[in-house]
Amino acid sequence: MRTSLIAGIFLSLSSFSVAQPQPQLNLMPMPANVQAGAGQLAINQSFSVAVAGNHDASLDSAIQRFVDQLSRQTGIPFRPKSGAAPTLQIHSDHGLQAVQKLGEDESYELTVADSGAKLTAPTTLGVLRGLATFLQLVQITPAEFAAPTVTVKDQPRFPWRGTLIDVSRHFIPIDVLKRNLDGMAAVKMNVLHWHLSDDQGFRVESKVFPKLTGMGSDGMFYTQDQIRDLIAYAHDRGIRVMPEFDIPGHSRSWFIGYPELSSGAGPYTLEGGGPGPYIDPIMDPTKESTYKFLEKFIAEMAKLFPDAYFHIGGDEVDGKQWDANPKIQAFIHAHGMKNNQDLQAYFNQRLEKIVAKNHKTMVGWDEIIHPDLPKTIVVQSWRGQASLAAAAKQGYRGLLSFGYYIDLMWPASRHYAVDPMADAAATLTPQEKSLILGGESCQWAEWVTPENIDSHIWPRNAVIAERLWSPQNVTDVASMYARMNTVSLELEFMGLTHRSARLHMLHRMAGPADITALRNLADVVEPVKDYNRWSDAKGPIDFHSPLTRMIDAVSPESDTARHFSDLVQAFVQSGYKDQAAEAQIRMWLTTWRDNDVRLQPLLGQTYLLQEDAPLSQDLSALGAAGLQALDYLDKGQTAPDSWKTQQSALIEQSKKPMADLLLMVVAPVQQLVDASSAQHN
Amino acid sequence: MRTSLIAGIFLSLSSFSVAQPQPQLNLMPMPANVQAGAGQLAINQSFSVAVAGNHDASLDSAIQRFVDQLSRQTGIPFRPKSGAAPTLQIHSDHGLQAVQKLGEDESYELTVADSGAKLTAPTTLGVLRGLATFLQLVQITPAEFAAPTVTVKDQPRFPWRGTLIDVSRHFIPIDVLKRNLDGMAAVKMNVLHWHLSDDQGFRVESKVFPKLTGMGSDGMFYTQDQIRDLIAYAHDRGIRVMPEFDIPGHSRSWFIGYPELSSGAGPYTLEGGGPGPYIDPIMDPTKESTYKFLEKFIAEMAKLFPDAYFHIGGDEVDGKQWDANPKIQAFIHAHGMKNNQDLQAYFNQRLEKIVAKNHKTMVGWDEIIHPDLPKTIVVQSWRGQASLAAAAKQGYRGLLSFGYYIDLMWPASRHYAVDPMADAAATLTPQEKSLILGGESCQWAEWVTPENIDSHIWPRNAVIAERLWSPQNVTDVASMYARMNTVSLELEFMGLTHRSARLHMLHRMAGPADITALRNLADVVEPVKDYNRWSDAKGPIDFHSPLTRMIDAVSPESDTARHFSDLVQAFVQSGYKDQAAEAQIRMWLTTWRDNDVRLQPLLGQTYLLQEDAPLSQDLSALGAAGLQALDYLDKGQTAPDSWKTQQSALIEQSKKPMADLLLMVVAPVQQLVDASSAQHN
Repeated sequence: MRTSLIAGIFLSLSSFSVAQPQPQLNLMPMPANVQAGAGQLAINQSFSVAVAGNHDASLDSAIQRFVDQLSRQTGIPFRPKSGAAPTLQIHSDHGLQAVQKLGEDESYELTVADSGAKLTAPTTLGVLRGLATFLQLVQITPAEFAAPTVTVKDQPRFPWRGTLIDVSRHFIPIDVLKRNLDGMAAVKMNVLHWHLSDDQGFRVESKVFPKLTGMGSDGMFYTQDQIRDLIAYAHDRGIRVMPEFDIPGHSRSWFIGYPELSSGAGPYTLEGGGPGPYIDPIMDPTKESTYKFLEKFIAEMAKLFPDAYFHIGGDEVDGKQWDANPKIQAFIHAHGMKNNQDLQAYFNQRLEKIVAKNHKTMVGWDEIIHPDLPKTIVVQSWRGQASLAAAAKQGYRGLLSFGYYIDLMWPASRHYAVDPMADAAATLTPQEKSLILGGESCQWAEWVTPENIDSHIWPRNAVIAERLWSPQNVTDVASMYARMNTVSLELEFMGLTHRSARLHMLHRMAGPADITALRNLADVVEPVKDYNRWSDAKGPIDFHSPLTRMIDAVSPESDTARHFSDLVQAFVQSGYKDQAAEAQIRMWLTTWRDNDVRLQPLLGQTYLLQEDAPLSQDLSALGAAGLQALDYLDKGQTAPDSWKTQQSALIEQSKKPMADLLLMVVAPVQQLVDASSAQHN
Repeated sequence: MRTSLIAGIFLSLSSFSVAQPQPQLNLMPMPANVQAGAGQLAINQSFSVAVAGNHDASLDSAIQRFVDQLSRQTGIPFRPKSGAAPTLQIHSDHGLQAVQKLGEDESYELTVADSGAKLTAPTTLGVLRGLATFLQLVQITPAEFAAPTVTVKDQPRFPWRGTLIDVSRHFIPIDVLKRNLDGMAAVKMNVLHWHLSDDQGFRVESKVFPKLTGMGSDGMFYTQDQIRDLIAYAHDRGIRVMPEFDIPGHSRSWFIGYPELSSGAGPYTLEGGGPGPYIDPIMDPTKESTYKFLEKFIAEMAKLFPDAYFHIGGDEVDGKQWDANPKIQAFIHAHGMKNNQDLQAYFNQRLEKIVAKNHKTMVGWDEIIHPDLPKTIVVQSWRGQASLAAAAKQGYRGLLSFGYYIDLMWPASRHYAVDPMADAAATLTPQEKSLILGGESCQWAEWVTPENIDSHIWPRNAVIAERLWSPQNVTDVASMYARMNTVSLELEFMGLTHRSARLHMLHRMAGPADITALRNLADVVEPVKDYNRWSDAKGPIDFHSPLTRMIDAVSPESDTARHFSDLVQAFVQSGYKDQAAEAQIRMWLTTWRDNDVRLQPLLGQTYLLQEDAPLSQDLSALGAAGLQALDYLDKGQTAPDSWKTQQSALIEQSKKPMADLLLMVVAPVQQLVDASSAQHN
């Protein structure tokens, strides 16, 4: 299934500097093979593209999109001269298939010389990947926009590189999905896993069962025409679209219109909340009518979604409704099952047959693994990397999502460190390893709206894309962050709003006031991690309430805090002698120390900012503490114990989440404070 | 024609503070009558709208757009409770007319109470204006989003409040025009003057004369379907669309495909340039075939554009081709004409008959005035305010554009000071005054692209909108700037990119580097004014070249420089005692002094920034000079003459444009330097 194992020689970024000064290649994902040259290919108004070999409409539109994006990035309106040699020559043998297949050849070769570039690929799919690489190669130089001379031979490490987007908990409109598909294509991802139904809303028009959206969606759903349009859009970009209809759990939205499907009495209402006092309804696997419904429904959806894979969910079935229903318990005993797990396995077996009858392969979350299910299914591991390896050992193909939950607000480096072949998977046989198809990042939608979803997905998603495309030994974190930053800009030029939305949201919170001081605060905080926002919430969560707090506006990861922390490391490692680092550290600390005076008046004026007042005070105090620590260090004095005690109290207080936010500069300031009080002359 | 002269009592902003503390009303244009109350109407999730009286599809879609925008501004997903009283009740008697008429009633009354708001208007047009006011009333408060209690009775001062957008010199796509129409509607403008043809491109599909775009447009033009779509979009927003086809001058693009229309021999090619060595071709008014062509063309366009007004240009006919053509000179003599002006008048007379036959009123630039033309035409004054008054004295209706050329990069305050009824117009009789219909801002497109056009139009266009809507005595500049700032944010929430595009463009110039220091520089420069960018250009201008320099990215007006200048005024007026002002002045000066060290390395790395290196150095030197001046002032010392001489040289040097940019903080720094050297103890 996999197109290649780790093949070819990977030149790390640092190896470029051996021969002669090379421009940094801001590529993400890093290609399998890169050989850098010495010169560069100018990109100017006469830029042009020529095609040889296969030539069809989808290639033309891919080239048009490529040229448009290159023009947006460079600001150059291209006016090719007729008769001149093309800047970029493209050759492919085959066009896109009507339906993109798993494991289809995505390889390409791209050669950039001073005089022109050449992109060859077996199929248009490879051309798409090569064009994405070319876009990233082009950068501004002292002389012009240019692509460095380079030879790239590239193909993905894994054939399945996806992003799950949950559109049930918060509905995400088609245009927002489209710009995210553009982003996925830019980093060579090839699967949109569309989580289309859950407790909070059913999002696909069914003509056979109109009450699914009519009663189960609060009016926000996709028509079948819109779905076909999105699939075509994805297909043009080399992205498969796999639907997920999560059953038998996570299915409250089905039961508003069709309560007979459920294991309880009903009636149900569409609650907007998260985990609350109400019971989680589950589908009833003991009634034949349930399967009759699913047969019709899956037949309809199998036609609507051309992809060969069909995700049935299968996660988090809590079984309470089954326990409470005597008929269901009787069914379990009558059929010799031991427990609810057996009942779900029975359900999955029946389901698999329906899915297979519609010429689809069933995919489900890792709870579905059961000896009675055929080895053709694909298991998506979310509960741990061990379950991926365990599935492979049992002969199941698998996808890794554990470690790729981007809704948990982890730093990019933490996702980057997760490798599908690591841990338990590392001990698999080559045959078993070949069953690991790749992975998917997961954007669960409890805390996103169309306005801020881009900032939750990007740019961190790019590093997961790299993990799944690039050779396993591409792991340098500093290089990753530098390249992620460049990709982030590329994506904004493409139309994603992960950076610009933050500014809009800060302006909304501030009203007409200047936001400089607010931005200074926003720059150094991060949302609380994992599910802490849930656990801090008072009472059940209303998913319909506005997401307009500071936590909703800020980036999951603070670049400023990371840079500041790096500066402090450099300063400490220099034995407190690196004056350039110290000057920058002082600049930051001064800004923070003085920021609260500027910010407090504003915080009182708007209800969305009042909760952030203690954060701002703490930041100010940390700035002062850090400066004082530097003064001690500069003078070679040991900070007095009383001062140290005071600062420790401040630091402990600042470590606690406030307004669901974490001040990310606490640790480096603590490092300075500790250093100044540990110092002995 | 005018719906009302300055009527009613206008309460200035400051008058609000007499009774009790009032929230500032961030309205632009300021309504004719405002009476503020004491409370506020909460805007929360249960916000809802009800309609009484006239109710049709266009009103529904207007309300939907309004609710969507309110939701974007507040971040609140509205979920009205069924059965609850509506938050906003709308009543109008009549819907939109199929074609909007000049002078149609745009009045409305809006009452906001603690318990709910009421909007009444004779027509949907008034409802649109009232909804725009409501959107601006809503602001964030310490408790919630809310609209202050207020009674507004409003109608426009002038019935014609337009924006001209030139789409010939740079083609502007439909989606960019649409978002600008949204902006116009937000500030109650009601005419898009669409400058559709000029020397650099013919932008409208003609089915009768396909070579107009086929040869005269480099492929970038609007299809007739797109034009109908845009007109419908504008109509929904209460905006008329008046086309302009500029003849007999500015018409090179016609002659590529139809050289027989011209007064010269041809053939012509579509040159991309501005004023160059080549001759300006003009239409031949002496051939009957010219009028046959225009009859067919105008008949086609008169059907396509439903508006009652049809602009034929008529400006800047340099007459060289007429002088050089013996047949044309013979025609002039044979018909007893004195000169080329008479020939153009003859042309305009023939043209007017064609336009009138198609049931349209002819509009032209002020050169067209001639006693032989009927009094029904409308004259657009661009060469001076006197010509507007002169036209009115002759009985012609007129529009003011002189003073409203937003491509000249003037500060908002300068446009704001221009009043159609001032100067020569002030001495007109009431009857003559009634002929002045209003005015239009003009966005000529030599130096804009789809990327930066919003920033050239907005937010400054809003103050021209206010001049044309609000009572003549609404002139407070400080209030204007405060309200313009709020409108600017509203427009970004609406989808305009006048703020966000600048960031993208700076990132393009900087490559992957941090742009903080670059932004500090960009914040204090402005493009050179008037036509100085033209005169500084070396050789003919190529309109197809990229517009990616600093001058293309920065705002026409520097907010930072204005604020800094205000601070220096406050400090000086306090006798150098205002410590708060001084602290802020020092903060800015320090930032600038230290900025060049941070910025210079970057400036060398990218070709788009190299020209800005001297600017950055000067800014740094000015920062140092200002700080030194403050030190002298603080110590009560007189700065030494030698120092003063040095700083004067720096100041003179910094006043000169560099890279077509002006450093806008020179004057206030000079003020500090002068103060420090004038000081005597």
